[in-house]
Amino acid sequence: MTEERTASEKRSRGPRDERGVMVARITQAARASFAHNGWAGTTLRGIAREVGVDPALVHYYFSSKEELLDASTNPPEAWIASIQRTSTVALEGRGEAIVRNVIWTWEHPEISEVLRSILLTAAHEPRTQEKLRTFLAASLLPSIAEQLDDEERLLRASLVGSQVLGLAMLRYVWRIEPLASVSDDELVTMVAPTIQRYLSGSLR
Amino acid sequence: MTEERTASEKRSRGPRDERGVMVARITQAARASFAHNGWAGTTLRGIAREVGVDPALVHYYFSSKEELLDASTNPPEAWIASIQRTSTVALEGRGEAIVRNVIWTWEHPEISEVLRSILLTAAHEPRTQEKLRTFLAASLLPSIAEQLDDEERLLRASLVGSQVLGLAMLRYVWRIEPLASVSDDELVTMVAPTIQRYLSGSLR
Repeated sequence: MTEERTASEKRSRGPRDERGVMVARITQAARASFAHNGWAGTTLRGIAREVGVDPALVHYYFSSKEELLDASTNPPEAWIASIQRTSTVALEGRGEAIVRNVIWTWEHPEISEVLRSILLTAAHEPRTQEKLRTFLAASLLPSIAEQLDDEERLLRASLVGSQVLGLAMLRYVWRIEPLASVSDDELVTMVAPTIQRYLSGSLR
Repeated sequence: MTEERTASEKRSRGPRDERGVMVARITQAARASFAHNGWAGTTLRGIAREVGVDPALVHYYFSSKEELLDASTNPPEAWIASIQRTSTVALEGRGEAIVRNVIWTWEHPEISEVLRSILLTAAHEPRTQEKLRTFLAASLLPSIAEQLDDEERLLRASLVGSQVLGLAMLRYVWRIEPLASVSDDELVTMVAPTIQRYLSGSLR
């Protein structure tokens, strides 16, 4: 809930709200630690040292490491909203809209930093993997597949998800060439037809 | 080098060769530990405890944690060979051959266990990520793209890689439904045209 909590608390208490700022700093440090040091290598004490505050303050906001992990791996609101917007694009143009949204997402410094950490953490942390699975199945995939035939919509959406995830990993996380440096327009031309077929083409 | 070393030493010294068996047990335990506990959470001492041997024995085979990581994250020979075989399939049938090979790979208990660990480790371990990147660029992608037009072959191969990786993650690692339980033949029908287009279709 962190991103949401931080954002809503900033809204209700103003941008200089100390609680919101502190929670954001703690979860940012926690994301980096969970992603790179894993569950076992992350401690509330280490996070406190990283942020430069007393461990008691971290404990004040997050009573356990589980709670901190949960707060640190919430998908950014702006990203969820951007995906939901692609579902309002007319079906025949949605393949391109989804590829352009992948590019926007991964070139957005704050969103991509959070998503990268969630992916890295999910890779080795079963709790985050489960959360990501639930999130994909309950929120992301139905949104991509909105307006599609009910029976096949989740299957089609998970095929879209497979291409989008692999593309993001190779182009933005592992930076495999030449995929990492083709232009955005080239990428759209190459990959949008795949997404479009998964959304509305013949699959059988 | 482990899989290779183990295999070749088994060949030269017979199946009961103690060194080969011990190296295989150590690297298997190391793979699981690097994947789940990360670099910081893995120690030669912990691996020794897991295998039930003296730490000195682990040190005898692997002088450092770097060396053990390197040995534990070598792609299985049988997997590399299977990919190279798909490059000998006539181009017009290679899309299907590649999807069938993904299914074979991930349903092969030993190969999939190793690949899963490498993916999980690569997610948070820069050394393994770099190794995977080099391996993909130097060996895997050129093999997939053999016989293709030279200029675009790596780009086409990396698009294939993006779909294959995303598919493997969603279907076999995260087990997202309904993708996780569609039949093999359905999967081929749905995904082979994507791979085939990346290999030999019009991309621009």
